[in-house]
Amino acid sequence: MEENKKPLILVTNDDGITAKGIRALIEIASQLGDVVVVAPDKPQSAMGHAITINNTLYLKEFKQHDYDHKEYMISGTPVDSVKMARHEILGRKPDLCLSGINHGSNSAINVIYSGTMSAAVEAGIEGIPAIGFSLCDYSPDADFSQSTHFVKHIIEQVLKNGMAPGVVLNVNIPKAQKENLKGIKVCRQARAHWVEEFDKRTNPYGKDYYWLTGKFVNNDKGEDTDEWALANNYISIVPTQYDLTAHHFISELNTWDLDS
Amino acid sequence: MEENKKPLILVTNDDGITAKGIRALIEIASQLGDVVVVAPDKPQSAMGHAITINNTLYLKEFKQHDYDHKEYMISGTPVDSVKMARHEILGRKPDLCLSGINHGSNSAINVIYSGTMSAAVEAGIEGIPAIGFSLCDYSPDADFSQSTHFVKHIIEQVLKNGMAPGVVLNVNIPKAQKENLKGIKVCRQARAHWVEEFDKRTNPYGKDYYWLTGKFVNNDKGEDTDEWALANNYISIVPTQYDLTAHHFISELNTWDLDS
Repeated sequence: MEENKKPLILVTNDDGITAKGIRALIEIASQLGDVVVVAPDKPQSAMGHAITINNTLYLKEFKQHDYDHKEYMISGTPVDSVKMARHEILGRKPDLCLSGINHGSNSAINVIYSGTMSAAVEAGIEGIPAIGFSLCDYSPDADFSQSTHFVKHIIEQVLKNGMAPGVVLNVNIPKAQKENLKGIKVCRQARAHWVEEFDKRTNPYGKDYYWLTGKFVNNDKGEDTDEWALANNYISIVPTQYDLTAHHFISELNTWDLDS
Repeated sequence: MEENKKPLILVTNDDGITAKGIRALIEIASQLGDVVVVAPDKPQSAMGHAITINNTLYLKEFKQHDYDHKEYMISGTPVDSVKMARHEILGRKPDLCLSGINHGSNSAINVIYSGTMSAAVEAGIEGIPAIGFSLCDYSPDADFSQSTHFVKHIIEQVLKNGMAPGVVLNVNIPKAQKENLKGIKVCRQARAHWVEEFDKRTNPYGKDYYWLTGKFVNNDKGEDTDEWALANNYISIVPTQYDLTAHHFISELNTWDLDS
Protein backbone atom coordinates (compact mmCIF):
# COMPACT_ATOMS: atom_id res chain seq x y z
CA MET A 1 0.00 0.00 0.00
CA GLU A 2 1.34 3.43 -0.95
CA GLU A 3 2.12 5.93 1.77
CA ASN A 4 -0.77 8.31 2.49
CA LYS A 5 -3.12 6.32 0.31
CA LYS A 6 -6.22 5.17 2.14
CA PRO A 7 -6.57 1.41 2.41
CA LEU A 8 -9.46 -0.29 0.62
CA ILE A 9 -11.48 -2.12 3.28
CA LEU A 10 -14.02 -4.82 2.46
CA VAL A 11 -16.68 -5.17 5.16
CA THR A 12 -18.89 -8.24 5.37
CA ASN A 13 -20.75 -10.29 7.99
CA ASP A 14 -23.07 -13.25 8.49
CA ASP A 15 -26.04 -11.59 10.17
CA GLY A 16 -26.97 -9.90 6.89
CA ILE A 17 -26.45 -6.41 5.51
CA THR A 18 -29.19 -4.84 7.63
CA ALA A 19 -27.80 -6.01 10.99
CA LYS A 20 -26.80 -3.49 13.62
CA GLY A 21 -23.37 -5.08 14.04
CA ILE A 22 -22.21 -4.50 10.48
CA ARG A 23 -23.34 -0.86 10.73
CA ALA A 24 -21.10 -0.40 13.78
CA LEU A 25 -18.15 -1.93 11.92
CA ILE A 26 -18.76 0.21 8.81
CA GLU A 27 -18.69 3.36 10.97
CA ILE A 28 -15.28 2.43 12.38
CA ALA A 29 -13.85 1.22 9.05
CA SER A 30 -14.91 4.48 7.35
CA GLN A 31 -12.59 6.38 9.70
CA LEU A 32 -9.64 4.25 8.57
CA GLY A 33 -10.04 3.68 4.85
CA ASP A 34 -12.23 3.50 1.75
CA VAL A 35 -15.04 1.08 2.48
CA VAL A 36 -16.93 -1.32 0.22
CA VAL A 37 -19.64 -3.47 1.79
CA VAL A 38 -20.59 -6.87 0.34
CA ALA A 39 -22.76 -8.96 2.62
CA PRO A 40 -25.56 -11.54 2.59
CA ASP A 41 -29.10 -10.24 2.00
CA LYS A 42 -30.41 -12.32 4.93
CA PRO A 43 -29.09 -13.90 8.13
CA GLN A 44 -26.50 -16.61 7.46
CA SER A 45 -25.45 -17.48 10.99
CA ALA A 46 -23.81 -20.88 11.53
CA MET A 47 -23.25 -21.35 7.80
CA GLY A 48 -19.59 -22.17 8.42
CA HIS A 49 -17.50 -22.23 5.27
CA ALA A 50 -20.45 -23.09 3.01
CA ILE A 51 -20.37 -21.89 -0.59
CA THR A 52 -23.15 -21.88 -3.17
CA ILE A 53 -22.47 -24.35 -5.96
CA ASN A 54 -25.87 -26.00 -6.42
CA ASN A 55 -27.75 -22.74 -6.82
CA THR A 56 -27.55 -19.39 -8.58
CA LEU A 57 -26.34 -16.19 -6.94
CA TYR A 58 -27.93 -12.78 -7.13
CA LEU A 59 -26.10 -9.50 -6.55
CA LYS A 60 -27.83 -6.17 -5.91
CA GLU A 61 -26.72 -2.73 -4.87
CA PHE A 62 -27.98 -1.82 -1.40
CA LYS A 63 -28.90 1.85 -1.05
CA GLN A 64 -30.73 2.06 2.25
CA HIS A 65 -28.12 4.30 3.84
CA ASP A 66 -26.79 7.70 2.85
CA TYR A 67 -23.09 6.86 2.61
CA ASP A 68 -20.28 7.85 0.27
CA HIS A 69 -19.28 4.23 -0.17
CA LYS A 70 -20.93 1.45 -2.18
CA GLU A 71 -22.82 -1.45 -0.66
CA TYR A 72 -23.91 -4.71 -2.26
CA MET A 73 -26.03 -7.57 -1.00
CA ILE A 74 -25.90 -11.08 -2.38
CA SER A 75 -28.19 -14.08 -2.12
CA GLY A 76 -25.42 -16.41 -0.89
CA THR A 77 -23.29 -17.16 2.15
CA PRO A 78 -20.63 -15.05 3.90
CA VAL A 79 -17.88 -16.92 2.01
CA ASP A 80 -19.72 -16.30 -1.29
CA SER A 81 -19.74 -12.60 -0.36
CA VAL A 82 -15.95 -12.47 -0.07
CA LYS A 83 -15.44 -14.40 -3.31
CA MET A 84 -17.87 -12.17 -5.16
CA ALA A 85 -16.38 -8.99 -3.70
CA ARG A 86 -12.86 -9.99 -4.68
CA HIS A 87 -13.51 -11.37 -8.15
CA GLU A 88 -16.68 -9.76 -9.45
CA ILE A 89 -17.13 -6.41 -7.69
CA LEU A 90 -13.65 -5.11 -6.80
CA GLY A 91 -11.64 -7.01 -9.40
CA ARG A 92 -8.64 -6.65 -7.09
CA LYS A 93 -7.57 -7.58 -3.60
CA PRO A 94 -8.79 -5.15 -0.93
CA ASP A 95 -6.10 -4.17 1.60
CA LEU A 96 -8.14 -5.52 4.49
CA CYS A 97 -11.29 -7.55 5.12
CA LEU A 98 -13.38 -6.99 8.24
CA SER A 99 -16.21 -9.36 9.13
CA GLY A 100 -18.88 -8.69 11.74
CA ILE A 101 -19.46 -7.36 14.21
CA ASN A 102 -21.28 -10.60 14.91
CA HIS A 103 -24.28 -10.66 17.23
CA GLY A 104 -23.02 -13.45 19.49
CA SER A 105 -19.80 -15.18 20.51
CA ASN A 106 -17.46 -16.94 18.06
CA SER A 107 -14.99 -18.04 20.70
CA ALA A 108 -13.70 -21.59 21.25
CA ILE A 109 -15.17 -24.21 18.88
CA ASN A 110 -17.77 -21.70 17.65
CA VAL A 111 -15.11 -20.48 15.21
CA ILE A 112 -15.76 -23.57 13.09
CA TYR A 113 -19.54 -23.02 12.73
CA SER A 114 -19.24 -19.27 12.33
CA GLY A 115 -20.11 -17.55 9.06
CA THR A 116 -18.43 -14.41 10.39
CA MET A 117 -15.10 -16.15 10.85
CA SER A 118 -15.45 -18.21 7.68
CA ALA A 119 -15.72 -14.97 5.68
CA ALA A 120 -12.52 -13.72 7.35
CA VAL A 121 -10.80 -17.07 6.73
CA GLU A 122 -11.83 -16.99 3.06
CA ALA A 123 -10.25 -13.54 2.75
CA GLY A 124 -7.12 -14.98 4.37
CA ILE A 125 -7.04 -17.83 1.85
CA GLU A 126 -7.17 -15.20 -0.91
CA GLY A 127 -4.18 -13.41 0.64
CA ILE A 128 -6.11 -10.54 2.23
CA PRO A 129 -5.35 -9.57 5.87
CA ALA A 130 -8.60 -10.25 7.73
CA ILE A 131 -10.28 -9.92 11.10
CA GLY A 132 -13.55 -11.35 12.36
CA PHE A 133 -15.22 -9.41 15.20
CA SER A 134 -17.92 -10.79 17.48
CA LEU A 135 -19.71 -9.34 20.49
CA CYS A 136 -20.91 -11.83 23.11
CA ASP A 137 -24.48 -10.59 22.89
CA TYR A 138 -27.01 -12.29 20.61
CA SER A 139 -29.57 -9.49 20.84
CA PRO A 140 -30.43 -7.74 17.54
CA ASP A 141 -30.22 -4.50 19.58
CA ALA A 142 -26.84 -5.33 21.16
CA ASP A 143 -24.78 -2.27 22.17
CA PHE A 144 -21.70 -2.22 19.93
CA SER A 145 -20.59 1.25 21.05
CA GLN A 146 -18.88 0.10 24.27
CA SER A 147 -15.96 -1.48 22.39
CA THR A 148 -15.54 0.98 19.49
CA HIS A 149 -12.20 2.19 20.79
CA PHE A 150 -10.74 -1.35 20.99
CA VAL A 151 -12.10 -2.46 17.61
CA LYS A 152 -10.54 0.58 15.96
CA HIS A 153 -7.23 0.01 17.73
CA ILE A 154 -7.04 -3.64 16.60
CA ILE A 155 -7.78 -2.67 12.98
CA GLU A 156 -5.06 0.01 13.14
CA GLN A 157 -2.57 -2.55 14.44
CA VAL A 158 -3.33 -4.93 11.55
CA LEU A 159 -3.00 -2.09 9.02
CA LYS A 160 0.34 -1.20 10.60
CA ASN A 161 1.81 -4.69 11.15
CA GLY A 162 0.17 -6.63 8.31
CA MET A 163 -0.69 -10.28 8.77
CA ALA A 164 1.42 -13.41 8.31
CA PRO A 165 0.29 -15.60 5.41
CA GLY A 166 -2.12 -18.27 6.59
CA VAL A 167 -3.31 -16.38 9.69
CA VAL A 168 -6.49 -14.38 10.34
CA LEU A 169 -7.65 -12.88 13.63
CA ASN A 170 -10.67 -14.01 15.62
CA VAL A 171 -11.66 -11.16 17.97
CA ASN A 172 -14.36 -11.66 20.60
CA ILE A 173 -15.67 -8.89 22.80
CA PRO A 174 -17.33 -9.51 26.17
CA LYS A 175 -20.72 -7.96 26.81
CA ALA A 176 -19.61 -5.23 29.20
CA GLN A 177 -19.66 -1.51 29.73
CA LYS A 178 -16.67 0.40 28.36
CA GLU A 179 -15.30 1.17 31.83
CA ASN A 180 -15.31 -2.52 32.73
CA LEU A 181 -13.38 -3.73 29.65
CA LYS A 182 -9.90 -4.59 30.93
CA GLY A 183 -8.03 -4.62 27.62
CA ILE A 184 -6.98 -7.02 24.85
CA LYS A 185 -5.57 -10.50 25.41
CA VAL A 186 -3.93 -12.82 22.84
CA CYS A 187 -5.34 -16.32 23.40
CA ARG A 188 -5.67 -19.84 22.13
CA GLN A 189 -9.03 -21.39 21.23
CA ALA A 190 -10.52 -23.08 24.32
CA ARG A 191 -11.26 -26.81 24.01
CA ALA A 192 -15.02 -26.55 24.43
CA HIS A 193 -17.93 -28.19 22.64
CA TRP A 194 -21.71 -28.20 22.38
CA VAL A 195 -23.96 -30.87 23.81
CA GLU A 196 -26.98 -31.00 21.55
CA GLU A 197 -30.55 -31.16 22.66
CA PHE A 198 -33.07 -31.64 19.89
CA ASP A 199 -36.39 -29.99 20.65
CA LYS A 200 -38.95 -32.32 19.02
CA ARG A 201 -42.33 -30.86 18.06
CA THR A 202 -45.29 -31.77 15.90
CA ASN A 203 -46.43 -29.43 13.15
CA PRO A 204 -50.11 -28.50 12.57
CA TYR A 205 -50.32 -31.30 9.99
CA GLY A 206 -49.18 -34.03 12.39
CA LYS A 207 -45.60 -34.36 11.18
CA ASP A 208 -42.71 -34.41 13.66
CA TYR A 209 -39.87 -31.94 13.30
CA TYR A 210 -36.88 -30.80 15.35
CA TRP A 211 -35.12 -27.64 16.42
CA LEU A 212 -31.40 -27.95 17.02
CA THR A 213 -30.55 -26.52 20.43
CA GLY A 214 -27.66 -27.18 22.73
CA LYS A 215 -25.59 -26.37 25.75
CA PHE A 216 -22.07 -24.96 25.48
CA VAL A 217 -19.67 -26.97 27.65
CA ASN A 218 -16.19 -25.68 28.44
CA ASN A 219 -13.93 -28.00 30.41
CA ASP A 220 -10.78 -26.11 29.44
CA LYS A 221 -9.90 -23.82 32.33
CA GLY A 222 -6.62 -22.56 30.84
CA GLU A 223 -5.97 -18.88 31.56
CA ASP A 224 -4.52 -18.60 28.05
CA THR A 225 -7.89 -19.41 26.45
CA ASP A 226 -10.40 -17.09 24.81
CA GLU A 227 -13.10 -18.32 27.19
CA TRP A 228 -11.04 -17.30 30.21
CA ALA A 229 -10.31 -13.89 28.71
CA LEU A 230 -13.99 -13.21 27.94
CA ALA A 231 -15.15 -14.40 31.37
CA ASN A 232 -12.67 -11.93 32.87
CA ASN A 233 -13.79 -8.97 30.74
CA TYR A 234 -10.88 -9.03 28.31
CA ILE A 235 -11.29 -8.77 24.54
CA SER A 236 -9.81 -12.00 23.15
CA ILE A 237 -7.74 -12.29 19.98
CA VAL A 238 -7.08 -15.82 18.69
CA PRO A 239 -4.78 -16.05 15.67
CA THR A 240 -6.60 -18.57 13.48
CA GLN A 241 -5.27 -20.73 10.64
CA TYR A 242 -6.74 -22.71 7.77
CA ASP A 243 -3.93 -25.22 7.41
CA LEU A 244 -5.92 -27.87 9.26
CA THR A 245 -3.07 -30.41 9.20
CA ALA A 246 -2.46 -31.91 12.65
CA HIS A 247 1.32 -31.72 12.07
CA HIS A 248 2.02 -33.17 15.52
CA PHE A 249 0.22 -36.41 14.57
CA ILE A 250 2.08 -37.14 11.31
CA SER A 251 4.93 -39.06 12.95
CA GLU A 252 2.47 -41.12 15.01
CA LEU A 253 0.47 -42.01 11.88
CA ASN A 254 3.67 -43.09 10.16
CA THR A 255 4.13 -45.78 12.81
CA TRP A 256 0.81 -47.38 11.80
CA ASP A 257 0.75 -50.40 9.50
CA LEU A 258 -0.35 -48.61 6.36
CA ASP A 259 1.26 -51.00 3.89
CA SER A 260 -1.42 -53.31 2.70
CA MET B 1 -15.15 -51.37 23.25
CA GLU B 2 -15.44 -54.90 24.62
CA GLU B 3 -13.36 -57.67 23.10
CA ASN B 4 -15.22 -59.58 20.36
CA LYS B 5 -18.04 -57.05 20.33
CA LYS B 6 -18.66 -55.51 16.94
CA PRO B 7 -18.04 -51.78 16.80
CA LEU B 8 -21.00 -49.48 16.14
CA ILE B 9 -20.20 -47.53 12.98
CA LEU B 10 -22.06 -44.37 11.97
CA VAL B 11 -21.92 -43.77 8.21
CA THR B 12 -22.76 -40.36 6.71
CA ASN B 13 -21.84 -38.24 3.71
CA ASP B 14 -22.57 -34.96 1.93
CA ASP B 15 -23.73 -36.20 -1.47
CA GLY B 16 -26.97 -37.45 0.05
CA ILE B 17 -28.19 -40.86 1.17
CA THR B 18 -28.86 -42.09 -2.38
CA ALA B 19 -25.32 -41.43 -3.68
CA LYS B 20 -23.23 -44.30 -5.02
CA GLY B 21 -20.29 -43.34 -2.80
CA ILE B 22 -22.11 -43.85 0.51
CA ARG B 23 -23.34 -47.24 -0.73
CA ALA B 24 -19.74 -48.32 -1.34
CA LEU B 25 -18.75 -47.18 2.16
CA ILE B 26 -21.74 -48.95 3.76
CA GLU B 27 -20.72 -52.21 2.06
CA ILE B 28 -17.22 -51.99 3.54
CA ALA B 29 -18.37 -50.81 6.98
CA SER B 30 -20.85 -53.70 7.20
CA GLN B 31 -17.93 -56.14 7.05
CA LEU B 32 -16.33 -54.48 10.08
CA GLY B 33 -19.13 -53.59 12.46
CA ASP B 34 -22.77 -52.81 13.12
CA VAL B 35 -23.78 -49.99 10.81
CA VAL B 36 -26.24 -47.14 11.24
CA VAL B 37 -26.62 -44.67 8.38
CA VAL B 38 -27.70 -41.06 8.98
CA ALA B 39 -27.24 -38.80 5.97
CA PRO B 40 -28.74 -35.78 4.22
CA ASP B 41 -31.80 -36.40 2.06
CA LYS B 42 -30.29 -34.36 -0.79
CA PRO B 43 -26.84 -33.24 -2.02
CA GLN B 44 -25.07 -31.00 0.50
CA SER B 45 -21.71 -30.57 -1.19
CA ALA B 46 -19.61 -27.56 -0.18
CA MET B 47 -21.76 -26.92 2.88
CA GLY B 48 -18.66 -26.79 5.08
CA HIS B 49 -19.44 -26.86 8.78
CA ALA B 50 -22.90 -25.35 8.35
CA ILE B 51 -25.60 -26.29 10.88
CA THR B 52 -29.33 -25.62 10.73
CA ILE B 53 -30.39 -23.12 13.37
CA ASN B 54 -32.77 -20.88 11.42
CA ASN B 55 -34.91 -23.71 10.13
CA THR B 56 -36.60 -26.91 11.28
CA LEU B 57 -35.16 -30.38 10.73
CA TYR B 58 -37.00 -33.45 9.52
CA LEU B 59 -35.90 -37.02 10.15
CA LYS B 60 -37.21 -40.04 8.26
CA GLU B 61 -36.30 -43.69 8.04
CA PHE B 62 -34.91 -44.63 4.64
CA LYS B 63 -35.92 -48.09 3.48
CA GLN B 64 -34.89 -48.23 -0.14
CA HIS B 65 -32.37 -50.99 0.40
CA ASP B 66 -32.74 -54.48 1.80
CA TYR B 67 -30.22 -54.28 4.62
CA ASP B 68 -30.12 -55.56 8.18
CA HIS B 69 -29.10 -52.15 9.46
CA LYS B 70 -31.16 -48.99 9.93
CA GLU B 71 -30.89 -45.91 7.72
CA TYR B 72 -32.20 -42.41 8.32
CA MET B 73 -32.28 -39.33 6.14
CA ILE B 74 -32.54 -35.82 7.47
CA SER B 75 -33.42 -32.49 5.88
CA GLY B 76 -30.25 -30.77 7.11
CA THR B 77 -26.51 -30.63 6.54
CA PRO B 78 -23.81 -33.29 7.02
CA VAL B 79 -22.93 -31.79 10.43
CA ASP B 80 -26.62 -31.84 11.42
CA SER B 81 -26.62 -35.55 10.48
CA VAL B 82 -23.82 -36.34 12.93
CA LYS B 83 -25.42 -34.29 15.73
CA MET B 84 -28.80 -35.94 15.16
CA ALA B 85 -27.29 -39.41 14.95
CA ARG B 86 -25.36 -38.97 18.20
CA HIS B 87 -28.01 -37.26 20.28
CA GLU B 88 -31.41 -38.19 18.85
CA ILE B 89 -31.05 -41.53 17.06
CA LEU B 90 -28.25 -43.48 18.78
CA GLY B 91 -28.39 -41.78 22.16
CA ARG B 92 -24.76 -42.79 22.64
CA LYS B 93 -21.39 -42.35 20.97
CA PRO B 94 -20.78 -44.71 18.06
CA ASP B 95 -17.32 -46.32 18.10
CA LEU B 96 -16.45 -44.84 14.72
CA CYS B 97 -17.83 -42.35 12.20
CA LEU B 98 -17.17 -42.77 8.49
CA SER B 99 -18.08 -40.01 6.04
CA GLY B 100 -18.20 -40.40 2.26
CA ILE B 101 -17.08 -41.80 0.01
CA ASN B 102 -17.28 -38.35 -1.54
CA HIS B 103 -17.71 -37.93 -5.26
CA GLY B 104 -14.75 -35.56 -5.79
CA SER B 105 -11.53 -34.51 -4.10
CA ASN B 106 -11.32 -33.02 -0.61
CA SER B 107 -7.56 -32.55 -0.66
CA ALA B 108 -5.68 -29.32 0.11
CA ILE B 109 -7.91 -26.33 0.95
CA ASN B 110 -11.01 -28.26 -0.19
CA VAL B 111 -11.10 -29.74 3.32
CA ILE B 112 -12.51 -26.44 4.57
CA TYR B 113 -15.46 -26.30 2.13
CA SER B 114 -16.18 -30.00 2.36
CA GLY B 115 -19.39 -31.29 3.92
CA THR B 116 -17.84 -34.78 3.95
CA MET B 117 -14.91 -33.68 6.08
CA SER B 118 -17.03 -31.35 8.23
CA ALA B 119 -19.18 -34.34 9.22
CA ALA B 120 -16.03 -36.25 10.21
CA VAL B 121 -14.70 -33.21 12.09
CA GLU B 122 -18.01 -32.85 13.95
CA ALA B 123 -17.73 -36.48 15.04
CA GLY B 124 -14.19 -35.73 16.20
CA ILE B 125 -15.42 -32.77 18.24
CA GLU B 126 -17.90 -35.13 19.91
CA GLY B 127 -15.06 -37.51 20.80
CA ILE B 128 -15.78 -40.11 18.11
CA PRO B 129 -12.86 -41.48 16.00
CA ALA B 130 -13.67 -40.37 12.46
CA ILE B 131 -12.50 -40.66 8.87
CA GLY B 132 -13.62 -38.77 5.76
CA PHE B 133 -13.10 -40.59 2.45
CA SER B 134 -13.12 -38.92 -0.96
CA LEU B 135 -12.49 -40.25 -4.46
CA CYS B 136 -11.04 -37.80 -6.98
CA ASP B 137 -13.87 -38.38 -9.43
CA TYR B 138 -16.92 -36.10 -9.48
CA SER B 139 -19.01 -38.43 -11.64
CA PRO B 140 -22.23 -39.76 -10.05
CA ASP B 141 -21.21 -43.12 -11.56
CA ALA B 142 -17.64 -43.03 -10.25
CA ASP B 143 -16.04 -46.45 -9.72
CA PHE B 144 -15.49 -46.87 -5.98
CA SER B 145 -14.55 -50.56 -6.24
CA GLN B 146 -10.92 -49.96 -7.22
CA SER B 147 -9.94 -48.77 -3.72
CA THR B 148 -12.12 -51.04 -1.56
CA HIS B 149 -9.12 -52.91 -0.20
CA PHE B 150 -7.37 -49.71 0.94
CA VAL B 151 -10.49 -48.13 2.45
CA LYS B 152 -11.10 -51.27 4.49
CA HIS B 153 -7.47 -51.41 5.61
CA ILE B 154 -7.50 -47.78 6.80
CA ILE B 155 -10.73 -48.34 8.78
CA GLU B 156 -9.21 -51.45 10.38
CA GLN B 157 -6.14 -49.47 11.39
CA VAL B 158 -8.27 -46.79 13.07
CA LEU B 159 -10.34 -49.44 14.89
CA LYS B 160 -7.07 -51.02 16.06
CA ASN B 161 -5.07 -47.89 16.96
CA GLY B 162 -7.84 -45.49 17.95
CA MET B 163 -7.49 -41.78 17.28
CA ALA B 164 -5.81 -39.06 19.32
CA PRO B 165 -8.26 -36.50 20.74
CA GLY B 166 -8.61 -33.55 18.40
CA VAL B 167 -7.57 -35.42 15.25
CA VAL B 168 -9.66 -36.87 12.40
CA LEU B 169 -8.40 -38.39 9.14
CA ASN B 170 -8.88 -36.91 5.68
CA VAL B 171 -8.41 -39.69 3.13
CA ASN B 172 -8.32 -38.91 -0.59
CA ILE B 173 -8.16 -41.58 -3.28
CA PRO B 174 -6.82 -40.94 -6.78
CA LYS B 175 -8.98 -41.92 -9.74
CA ALA B 176 -7.01 -44.96 -10.84
CA GLN B 177 -7.32 -48.66 -11.51
CA LYS B 178 -6.56 -50.95 -8.57
CA GLU B 179 -3.31 -52.18 -10.10
CA ASN B 180 -2.03 -48.63 -10.48
CA LEU B 181 -2.66 -47.55 -6.87
CA LYS B 182 0.78 -47.39 -5.26
CA GLY B 183 -0.26 -47.44 -1.60
CA ILE B 184 -1.07 -45.07 1.26
CA LYS B 185 0.92 -41.95 2.13
CA VAL B 186 0.63 -39.77 5.26
CA CYS B 187 0.68 -36.12 4.12
CA ARG B 188 0.17 -32.52 5.03
CA GLN B 189 -2.52 -30.33 3.42
CA ALA B 190 -1.07 -28.64 0.31
CA ARG B 191 -1.15 -24.83 0.28
CA ALA B 192 -3.49 -24.45 -2.68
CA HIS B 193 -6.48 -22.20 -3.35
CA TRP B 194 -9.25 -21.51 -5.83
CA VAL B 195 -9.32 -18.60 -8.24
CA GLU B 196 -12.97 -17.79 -8.76
CA GLU B 197 -14.61 -17.10 -12.06
CA PHE B 198 -18.22 -15.97 -11.84
CA ASP B 199 -20.26 -17.08 -14.84
CA LYS B 200 -22.77 -14.23 -15.30
CA ARG B 201 -26.02 -15.01 -17.11
CA THR B 202 -29.44 -13.45 -17.63
CA ASN B 203 -32.55 -15.35 -16.65
CA PRO B 204 -35.65 -15.58 -18.92
CA TYR B 205 -37.13 -12.60 -17.03
CA GLY B 206 -34.20 -10.30 -17.71
CA LYS B 207 -32.54 -10.52 -14.30
CA ASP B 208 -28.79 -11.16 -14.02
CA TYR B 209 -27.51 -14.04 -11.95
CA TYR B 210 -24.22 -15.83 -11.37
CA TRP B 211 -22.77 -19.31 -11.11
CA LEU B 212 -19.74 -19.69 -8.90
CA THR B 213 -17.01 -21.48 -10.81
CA GLY B 214 -13.28 -21.52 -10.35
CA LYS B 215 -9.87 -22.88 -11.09
CA PHE B 216 -7.88 -24.86 -8.52
CA VAL B 217 -4.36 -23.46 -8.21
CA ASN B 218 -1.62 -25.39 -6.40
CA ASN B 219 1.73 -23.66 -6.05
CA ASP B 220 2.88 -26.00 -3.28
CA LYS B 221 5.13 -28.60 -4.86
CA GLY B 222 6.12 -30.31 -1.59
CA GLU B 223 6.42 -34.08 -1.92
CA ASP B 224 4.91 -34.36 1.57
CA THR B 225 1.59 -32.86 0.40
CA ASP B 226 -1.69 -34.58 -0.39
CA GLU B 227 -1.67 -33.07 -3.89
CA TRP B 228 1.71 -34.66 -4.65
CA ALA B 229 0.56 -38.04 -3.33
CA LEU B 230 -2.63 -38.01 -5.41
CA ALA B 231 -0.80 -36.88 -8.56
CA ASN B 232 1.52 -39.86 -8.05
CA ASN B 233 -1.27 -42.41 -7.55
CA TYR B 234 -0.97 -42.68 -3.78
CA ILE B 235 -3.95 -42.58 -1.44
CA SER B 236 -3.34 -39.56 0.84
CA ILE B 237 -4.10 -39.41 4.55
CA VAL B 238 -3.93 -35.98 6.18
CA PRO B 239 -4.43 -35.91 9.95
CA THR B 240 -6.79 -32.97 10.40
CA GLN B 241 -7.49 -30.89 13.50
CA TYR B 242 -10.18 -28.47 14.64
CA ASP B 243 -8.09 -26.46 17.05
CA LEU B 244 -7.70 -23.64 14.54
CA THR B 245 -5.34 -21.64 16.77
CA ALA B 246 -2.23 -20.53 14.87
CA HIS B 247 -0.07 -21.32 17.92
CA HIS B 248 3.11 -20.27 16.09
CA PHE B 249 1.76 -16.72 15.72
CA ILE B 250 0.87 -16.08 19.38
CA SER B 251 4.32 -14.81 20.39
CA GLU B 252 4.45 -12.49 17.34
CA LEU B 253 1.01 -11.07 18.22
CA ASN B 254 2.19 -10.43 21.76
CA THR B 255 4.85 -8.05 20.40
CA TRP B 256 2.12 -5.84 18.90
CA ASP B 257 0.98 -2.70 20.70
CA LEU B 258 -2.31 -4.05 22.02
CA ASP B 259 -2.53 -1.78 25.06
CA SER B 260 -4.82 1.03 24.20
